[in-house]
Amino acid sequence: MNVFLTKNRGLLLAYDQGLEHGPTDFNEQNVDPAFVMNLAVQGQFNGVIFQKGVAEKYYGGQVPLILKVNGKTKLVKGEPLARQICSVKRAAEIGAKAVGYTIYAGSAHESLMLEEFGRIQEEAHGLNLAAIAWIYPRGETIKNDTAPEIVAYAARIGLEVGADAVKIKYPGNTESFKWAVKSAGKVKVFMSGGPKAASDADFLRQVRGALDAGATGLAVGRNVWQSSNPLKMAHALRRLVIEDRSVEEALRA
Amino acid sequence: MNVFLTKNRGLLLAYDQGLEHGPTDFNEQNVDPAFVMNLAVQGQFNGVIFQKGVAEKYYGGQVPLILKVNGKTKLVKGEPLARQICSVKRAAEIGAKAVGYTIYAGSAHESLMLEEFGRIQEEAHGLNLAAIAWIYPRGETIKNDTAPEIVAYAARIGLEVGADAVKIKYPGNTESFKWAVKSAGKVKVFMSGGPKAASDADFLRQVRGALDAGATGLAVGRNVWQSSNPLKMAHALRRLVIEDRSVEEALRA
Amino acid sequence: MNVFLTKNRGLLLAYDQGLEHGPTDFNEQNVDPAFVMNLAVQGQFNGVIFQKGVAEKYYGGQVPLILKVNGKTKLVKGEPLARQICSVKRAAEIGAKAVGYTIYAGSAHESLMLEEFGRIQEEAHGLNLAAIAWIYPRGETIKNDTAPEIVAYAARIGLEVGADAVKIKYPGNTESFKWAVKSAGKVKVFMSGGPKAASDADFLRQVRGALDAGATGLAVGRNVWQSSNPLKMAHALRRLVIEDRSVEEALRA
Amino acid sequence: MNVFLTKNRGLLLAYDQGLEHGPTDFNEQNVDPAFVMNLAVQGQFNGVIFQKGVAEKYYGGQVPLILKVNGKTKLVKGEPLARQICSVKRAAEIGAKAVGYTIYAGSAHESLMLEEFGRIQEEAHGLNLAAIAWIYPRGETIKNDTAPEIVAYAARIGLEVGADAVKIKYPGNTESFKWAVKSAGKVKVFMSGGPKAASDADFLRQVRGALDAGATGLAVGRNVWQSSNPLKMAHALRRLVIEDRSVEEALRA
Amino acid sequence: MNVFLTKNRGLLLAYDQGLEHGPTDFNEQNVDPAFVMNLAVQGQFNGVIFQKGVAEKYYGGQVPLILKVNGKTKLVKGEPLARQICSVKRAAEIGAKAVGYTIYAGSAHESLMLEEFGRIQEEAHGLNLAAIAWIYPRGETIKNDTAPEIVAYAARIGLEVGADAVKIKYPGNTESFKWAVKSAGKVKVFMSGGPKAASDADFLRQVRGALDAGATGLAVGRNVWQSSNPLKMAHALRRLVIEDRSVEEALRA
Repeated sequence: MNVFLTKNRGLLLAYDQGLEHGPTDFNEQNVDPAFVMNLAVQGQFNGVIFQKGVAEKYYGGQVPLILKVNGKTKLVKGEPLARQICSVKRAAEIGAKAVGYTIYAGSAHESLMLEEFGRIQEEAHGLNLAAIAWIYPRGETIKNDTAPEIVAYAARIGLEVGADAVKIKYPGNTESFKWAVKSAGKVKVFMSGGPKAASDADFLRQVRGALDAGATGLAVGRNVWQSSNPLKMAHALRRLVIEDRSVEEALRA
Repeated sequence: MNVFLTKNRGLLLAYDQGLEHGPTDFNEQNVDPAFVMNLAVQGQFNGVIFQKGVAEKYYGGQVPLILKVNGKTKLVKGEPLARQICSVKRAAEIGAKAVGYTIYAGSAHESLMLEEFGRIQEEAHGLNLAAIAWIYPRGETIKNDTAPEIVAYAARIGLEVGADAVKIKYPGNTESFKWAVKSAGKVKVFMSGGPKAASDADFLRQVRGALDAGATGLAVGRNVWQSSNPLKMAHALRRLVIEDRSVEEALRA
Repeated sequence: MNVFLTKNRGLLLAYDQGLEHGPTDFNEQNVDPAFVMNLAVQGQFNGVIFQKGVAEKYYGGQVPLILKVNGKTKLVKGEPLARQICSVKRAAEIGAKAVGYTIYAGSAHESLMLEEFGRIQEEAHGLNLAAIAWIYPRGETIKNDTAPEIVAYAARIGLEVGADAVKIKYPGNTESFKWAVKSAGKVKVFMSGGPKAASDADFLRQVRGALDAGATGLAVGRNVWQSSNPLKMAHALRRLVIEDRSVEEALRA
Repeated sequence: MNVFLTKNRGLLLAYDQGLEHGPTDFNEQNVDPAFVMNLAVQGQFNGVIFQKGVAEKYYGGQVPLILKVNGKTKLVKGEPLARQICSVKRAAEIGAKAVGYTIYAGSAHESLMLEEFGRIQEEAHGLNLAAIAWIYPRGETIKNDTAPEIVAYAARIGLEVGADAVKIKYPGNTESFKWAVKSAGKVKVFMSGGPKAASDADFLRQVRGALDAGATGLAVGRNVWQSSNPLKMAHALRRLVIEDRSVEEALRA
Repeated sequence: MNVFLTKNRGLLLAYDQGLEHGPTDFNEQNVDPAFVMNLAVQGQFNGVIFQKGVAEKYYGGQVPLILKVNGKTKLVKGEPLARQICSVKRAAEIGAKAVGYTIYAGSAHESLMLEEFGRIQEEAHGLNLAAIAWIYPRGETIKNDTAPEIVAYAARIGLEVGADAVKIKYPGNTESFKWAVKSAGKVKVFMSGGPKAASDADFLRQVRGALDAGATGLAVGRNVWQSSNPLKMAHALRRLVIEDRSVEEALRA
C-alpha cells in the first residue's frame, strides 16, 4: 500500500461511477476520462481508480493505478451482486499497483463476493498487488448503512478477509469512525467520498473528522470532479489529508 | 477495430436474428445465409455478423467477420440471459476479426454477463480479436430502453468494461445520441438498426442523426435484408455512412 | 454426417426412451437393448441412438452410433433441463460417430443448454464426431410445440448454434416442414418419430411428407420397436426414406 | 463388480445412515463403526458401504469397500440434493473397489446429480472402480416410491446412465421386481434393505422375493445391525442370498 | 491433531467473531488481534483460530494456528451459507496446522458446504493439515440447535465427512453430550464456547460436563476475551481442561 501513500496518508481519485451510476454523474468535462486522468496528475493524487476499460484506454502511468475488478450497474434491483470483470493478471499488465473489489456485506449474494474476494486477494498478493476492499453493507437487513455499528462491521470485515485497505462510508462523526478504524486494526481505512456535499467546507469537515479518527485517507470522486473548480478542491484536500492541515487552512490556500 | 472501418466509418451487416427472433424475420430469399453472405460482399459491408453455426457453414472470407459468441431465443420469458455459445478460440479459427457479445444491463442476470464479457474481452485481445459489446438495457426496471439517459448509460458501460466498440439503440434524436457517443469516450459507437422502419428515408434519417452525433457507423440487418431491394439499400447506406453524404444524396444515386 | 447417410438419406433408430420416459414405453421384447441393437443391424439402420450406459453394455459396432450425451427423466416437473451425462471423449472411446444433445428452447434453463451444446459441439468436432441437436421448444411460453413457426424456429436454432443435424417434430404438413427445412439451411433435418401413430400407413404418410419437404431422414423409435412387426416396419421405412418410394410401395413389399 | 460377488450373488452391508439419518438409527453398540466393520468380516459380507470419514478411520481391508461419495442429512427439507463429498481418486486411495452415488430422480435438482454421476462413473472406470447408483425417486411428483413403475424406472435409469449396479427399493412383490430387473438389463440389481422390518421372517421373505425376481443381491443395514442378533441375521441372509436357500432353511440354521 | 493437544486434551482460543458477529462482540482491548494473539501465548492455549486477514497481519507463530477458511456475516438473513474465503494452500503458507470450516447442516445450502468441505478436507490432508469442522445445524427445520439428538447428529456428520475434529454446541448436560461424543467415534470433539455465560463458574461447569462426557476440549472465545480478567479465565480453563481438575480447583488457583 505504500505506493499510494505520502507521509502515511493517501488521497485517491475515484472514477468508476460510469459503471455504477451511469453518465448522469457527469458533465461535458468530467465525462471524459482524459480530463480525470489529467486531474489525477495535476492534483497530485496518490492513486486513481478506474475500471478496466477506462484504464486500458486512458491510464497514463503518472499516478499509481487501482484497478476496480468488479462492478455492476444501478439498473438492477434486488439484492446487490457484483462479480469479477477484470482478471488480476490483466490488472497487473495494465500497470495497476492494486485491485479494488466491492463486497456488498448483508446481500443475499454475500457469500459469492466473500469467496471471490478471497481468491482475488491471494492472486493479487502473488503478483505483488495490494487488495483494496470497498465494503458496503446492503440488502434487506440493512436499514442504515452509515449507522456506527454497521460502518465498524464493514471495517472489520476488511480485516478478517485479508484486505490491505478498506473503503467505507463516514458515519457522521469522529467518535464513531474511531471505532471503525480501531476495528480495522492494521488495515488502512479510506473514507468513501460519497455524493457531492452541500458545500466544500461541509465535505472537508467530514474528511477532517475521518482523519482525526485515524483514517489513512480519502477516496474521492464526485466531490472533486463535480466541483466547480476540481483542481482547487484537489489542492484543498491534499492540504487537509497529506499535510494534515485544518479545514480552514486547507480552504484558504 | 480498423479492419471494420473505411475512412473511420463502418457499416456492418447483422444476421444473428435467426437465433434471437427465429425465421419469422425471414422471407424465402433472406432465410438463406448464402444470400446474406453474398449481400455482404456485393454491398461492400465493412463486416458481417454471424453466430457460430452460420459462420462455419456460410462464411466466405471476403468480408471481415464478427462472430456473435452469445445469444438466446425470444421464446424465454423473464429476466434476459444469454451465455457464451462459441469459444473465442473457435471464433478465431473460423476467421473472425472480432467477437460480439450481448450484455443485458439491468437484467437480474447482469452480473453473469458482465463477468463473462470480462473474460471474453481478455481472451479476444489475447488472440488479436476486437471485442464488441451489444449493450441492451432490459429487465424489470427498464421502462424505456431508448430513453436518452438509458442509451448513454449503455454506451458508457461499454467503455467501462473494455469493449472496443458498442452497438446501442438510437434514442430518436441527434442531441441525445451525442451525449451517448461522448459517454462512450474512445469506444466506437455503432447504431443498432432495429426493426424495419416505415420507409427507407425514415431509416436513413435516423442513421444520419447518429452519424452527426459522432457514431462510427451502423450495424444493420432487417432494414437491409428485409428491404424490397437490399443491394440498393446497402448502397444508399454506404453513401451515407462511409461517404458521409446527406440522406437525399444517399437515396438519389 | 455422411457416415449416417445412404443416398443422402438417413434412417436412425432411437432408443433413449428408457431414460426419458422409463420402461412404460417397453414390452418384454424391446425392454432388452440387445433386441434393439439386433433390430438396428437387421433393419439396416443408418445409425442407432443410445445413452452411455446402453452403449457401453450393448453396442456392437455394426451400425454407426449416435451417443446421446444429455438427458432427464419425465419425473421432474417445471421448466425442463437436461445436463451433460457423458463426456465427448467417452463417447468417442465407445465408438460413437456423433453425439446427440437435447436443447429445450424456451425453457427458463435454455441458456445453460445453449452454452453446454456450444462447448460440446466444439469438442465433438475436435474429435471428428458430428454434433446432432434435438431441438424441442418447451416451457411456460410454448403453447404448441408443433406449430409451424415453432418447428421452423427449432430448425433454425440448430443452424445458428452449429449443429450438423437437427431432430425436430413434424408440424403436420409438408408445406410447414418445407419452411423448417429451409430455415435449417445446410443443416440436415431429421423428423422425430414421436409416439406410436394410429396406423403404420398414418406414420409413413407423415414421414413421406417430411421427405417431400426436404428432410434428410427420420429418427424413429417407438413407431418401429413398438410395432407388432418391428423388422417389417423397419424395411418399409427404409424403402420410403432411403429408396424414396411412395407410402404404398413402401407398405407393399 | 465381480469382487463383490460370490456365485454371482452379493450381500452388502450398508452403514452410511450416520449421515443420512443421524445417530437416531444407532444404539450403543452399532453407533461404533468398529462394531460394524467387524460384523462385515464375521458375517462374510461381500462388501461394506461407508462414507469417506468412516472408511478413513475404520476400514480394515478384509472386506471389499464401496465408498459412498455423495450424501446429505435428513435435516434439509425441499427437493433433495446430494453432491459429491469424496473424490474418486481419494476413494481409490482408501482402497475402495467401487464408488456409490445417490441419484434422487424426480427431484428439481435431478439434472445436477445425473451430471455428477456421469462424470464420477467415467472417473471410476478410469481407475478400475465400479460405479454403483442408489436410485431413489423423490420430489414433488413422486407419490409412491415403491410403485412398480417407479421402481422399474429407477432400475432403468441405472442402465441408461452407465451404472454397474443399482440399489433400488423392493416394490412388495416378485412380479413387479422382475420387471425392474428386466428393465435394468445387464446392470446388477441390489435390493435396498430399508427400515427394520416387523420380523426377521418378514424381511427374509422380501429378500427371497427379490432374488426370485432376478436380483443379484441385497444391500442391507438396519435389518442387520439393528437386529437383536446381528451376526445370526447376517448368517441367515448369507444362506438366503449366496447359498440360495429358502426363507425357512435360512432361518433354521 | 496432536499438535493441538496436551495430555490428549486441547484448549483452543477462537477469534473469528469479527467476521461472524462484527465488532459489537469487542471492547477497546479485545478488538485488537494483537491482544488476543498475546492472550493465546500467555494463556498457553493449544491453538488459536483466526480468519485469513487476522492471521496474515497478527499471527506470531508461538501457538499452533487453525485457519478458519470460510465464514459469513450476521447481516445476511435466510438459509445460512458460508463459502471458502481462504485457500488451503494459503493457509499452509501462513503457517496453519489445521483448517476450520463451518457446515450449516440443515440449511437449504447444506449440499454446497458438504461438497466444499469434502474437497478442502482432501486438500488439507494432502498438505498435512488437519481439517476441523464447525457443525452448526441451522435453517428452517431446526427448532432447537442444542437438542440432544441435533448435537449428536452434528457430531456424527463430522465423522461421516472425514473431519479430524468437530466443534459442536453443548446440549446442557453430560449425558446428552456423551452420546454425541460416542456418535463422533474417533473424531475429537470440541465444545463450542458460545456467548458469554452468566458467571465464570457457570461456564466452567458446562465445560466440565463436556469433558466428563469425553470431549477432547474446548474452543472458546467470548468467555475468555470478554472476561474481566481474560488471563485468569484462561488459566482456570487450562486447569480444568488440560489438568483435568474440578470446577472448584480450577477457579481457586
